[in-house]
Amino acid sequence: MRKKISRRMLLGGAATAAVAITQTSFAKAVQIGIPEKAFGPDDPTKVPGAPPGELGTRSKFEKLLKSPSEISSRTPLQDLYGIITPADLHFERHHGGVPVIDPAKYELVIHGMVDKPTVFTLADLKRFPSVSRICFLECSGNYRGRGTNQKLSPQDICGLTSQSEWTGVLLSTLFREVGVQPKATWFLAEGSDAAVMTRSVPVSKGFDDAMIVYAQNGEPLRPEQGYPARLFLPGWEGNASVKWLRRLELADQPFMTREETSKYTEPIRNGKIRQFSFTIDARSVITYPTYPATIQKGWLEIRGLAWSGRGKVRQVEVSTDNGKTWHLAQLQGPVLDKAHTRFRYLWQWNGSETVIMSRVIDETDYLQPTLRELLTARGADTGGYHLNPITAWEVKPNGQVLFRPEV
Amino acid sequence: MRKKISRRMLLGGAATAAVAITQTSFAKAVQIGIPEKAFGPDDPTKVPGAPPGELGTRSKFEKLLKSPSEISSRTPLQDLYGIITPADLHFERHHGGVPVIDPAKYELVIHGMVDKPTVFTLADLKRFPSVSRICFLECSGNYRGRGTNQKLSPQDICGLTSQSEWTGVLLSTLFREVGVQPKATWFLAEGSDAAVMTRSVPVSKGFDDAMIVYAQNGEPLRPEQGYPARLFLPGWEGNASVKWLRRLELADQPFMTREETSKYTEPIRNGKIRQFSFTIDARSVITYPTYPATIQKGWLEIRGLAWSGRGKVRQVEVSTDNGKTWHLAQLQGPVLDKAHTRFRYLWQWNGSETVIMSRVIDETDYLQPTLRELLTARGADTGGYHLNPITAWEVKPNGQVLFRPEV
Repeated sequence: MRKKISRRMLLGGAATAAVAITQTSFAKAVQIGIPEKAFGPDDPTKVPGAPPGELGTRSKFEKLLKSPSEISSRTPLQDLYGIITPADLHFERHHGGVPVIDPAKYELVIHGMVDKPTVFTLADLKRFPSVSRICFLECSGNYRGRGTNQKLSPQDICGLTSQSEWTGVLLSTLFREVGVQPKATWFLAEGSDAAVMTRSVPVSKGFDDAMIVYAQNGEPLRPEQGYPARLFLPGWEGNASVKWLRRLELADQPFMTREETSKYTEPIRNGKIRQFSFTIDARSVITYPTYPATIQKGWLEIRGLAWSGRGKVRQVEVSTDNGKTWHLAQLQGPVLDKAHTRFRYLWQWNGSETVIMSRVIDETDYLQPTLRELLTARGADTGGYHLNPITAWEVKPNGQVLFRPEV
Repeated sequence: MRKKISRRMLLGGAATAAVAITQTSFAKAVQIGIPEKAFGPDDPTKVPGAPPGELGTRSKFEKLLKSPSEISSRTPLQDLYGIITPADLHFERHHGGVPVIDPAKYELVIHGMVDKPTVFTLADLKRFPSVSRICFLECSGNYRGRGTNQKLSPQDICGLTSQSEWTGVLLSTLFREVGVQPKATWFLAEGSDAAVMTRSVPVSKGFDDAMIVYAQNGEPLRPEQGYPARLFLPGWEGNASVKWLRRLELADQPFMTREETSKYTEPIRNGKIRQFSFTIDARSVITYPTYPATIQKGWLEIRGLAWSGRGKVRQVEVSTDNGKTWHLAQLQGPVLDKAHTRFRYLWQWNGSETVIMSRVIDETDYLQPTLRELLTARGADTGGYHLNPITAWEVKPNGQVLFRPEV
């Protein structure tokens, strides 16, 4: 809590407080009118600091870590600010681990239904006209919240989404270079990881906004993100943005690979399967206050992220009364296309038990559903993919904040 | 260079090339029609990769380092892409090294000509309405290029500028909280480093767009950048954005501290001194191709950064004939206020010796000058501050690129 210094304290308190000067804080020393005096053993002005280094560091007082399992690790959304995810905190989801690739030996081959099958080195890719865009990347399996466990953070529930500034060459540039034939409607993207990840992607996405990216947040792509080059499909499920990309094959039909048939499809109503459900639906999540935070009475800022694979976020609404009423949140500009957008809502918590939640509407008028609405529309067994429900948090009278499972 | 695969090679080459299959690349294996075969000991698909981790890593093939001296370290602009500077590559310039500050003990005191002198903890600062903005930070001493040394990179010449997404509370919010008195026209900002850095700042900047920032590129501020909280003055010389901020004192005149009298002022014509020259003038610098790059004949993309402390970049022009003719560069959107803006210009180098350079015009119509124009207008001995000249690069017939000192 803020401590008010009265004028009386500031102007007249010096004599009585001087005894304690070696144990007091700098602010206290200012308060009693002797800011030039040292304020005890913690005074950082009395010791020379560390010199400039080759690389900056994180404060030892901050613990920023992903939570790795055997196949993935999750971005600590509750510990982050703004819209950029530090590259080393970008979520990971691998199917055969992270390969080591020498960039000098890297090659990308584009072949199949093209006029000029071509091999591109990394230097070739960097020589083409480049583009940068700030864009989210989310795994289609990014929901974990059914059951009864309330001790879940945004990282636990929703940590398989991250955002970077991506730089690379538009795939349309390479498609024109190799002469994609008019009858080609799909392409296979193949990675050089131990899983040899393969996905089929419509050629139309390649001509729209797909990129081959080699840089992330200003620096070369990280190994965990596909170094030295990966496919990047803005707004689409992360798995299709094949990492460590080595081959694109153009064809007139999808390739029906393992990771788009036995996986990355969703069972829906009446025993049917939804396949090639590429687009990430609009979603929002409060990142503060959430588990494991504890809050105090009074004004605080509810903060979160909202995004949509279909375009820009139009509006985010926050409810502090368990969904009875909704209030417009502020969006931090610039609001970018297919990008995590920071929202904020100023709330005065009166100390009583309540539930807070957020929902987003994107520029296509898609409204983020509840989990119940989602399952009612799609069918109960969704296979765990493309779940983007409204996420709610219980605020207890003691200030504890807990996840509220909906089903 | 790109290797063209002929249809004949792709379809008919399998038999003759099969001998070399264990030594060939994957792209070659595709080319000869047997992509499913292994392609030798470097095949990354034949070994399990590393599992997901708590933190991502950089590729061992990439060397990204700042170049530290005793007082500063510089961002490797020539190695970076897009507009975000990774936080650990943000330039450093310290006057007493990097102090270690426990965030639990952090306090910011605001006093002087205010109605309610107040001490804010870090938790207090984070509780206020927050804002994020992507903005450059540049040291006013960020030019090193006079003399005869041509083996200088953008990092050497211009590496004391970096860009981050900064998050914090607007200083105007705190000013309203403490009740800044109408007669207060300046405030002192004091750091808790061993130099006890102090600068005077006009109150008007505090009410305009100044921030107290506690986060950078999504994560808590780095120690080298002022952890746990610093002043941030968008578009102004970096030194005034006092790091490790512990005190703001409101007054009706500037404080005339060491770092705004003996330093951070510029000698100008007729023995006069220019003081409180806060604003960073518009500047651009090519980051590729520059020393130490070597280029090859044909098409390549000239890339660079442009920025202005007065607002948005309006236009960047590139010359590839030593300033005789200028061509509009493309600006990467969104073009942000007081922000590094990436520019690009596609150029076909014919192999002959030439000089390339860039210049920026900002939204106030300020045109980046040559060093000669700068010194003619300001006076020969500028003391090394606020130099933003057009930077030129010599391209040699062998493709070597060298810095061209103008004076």
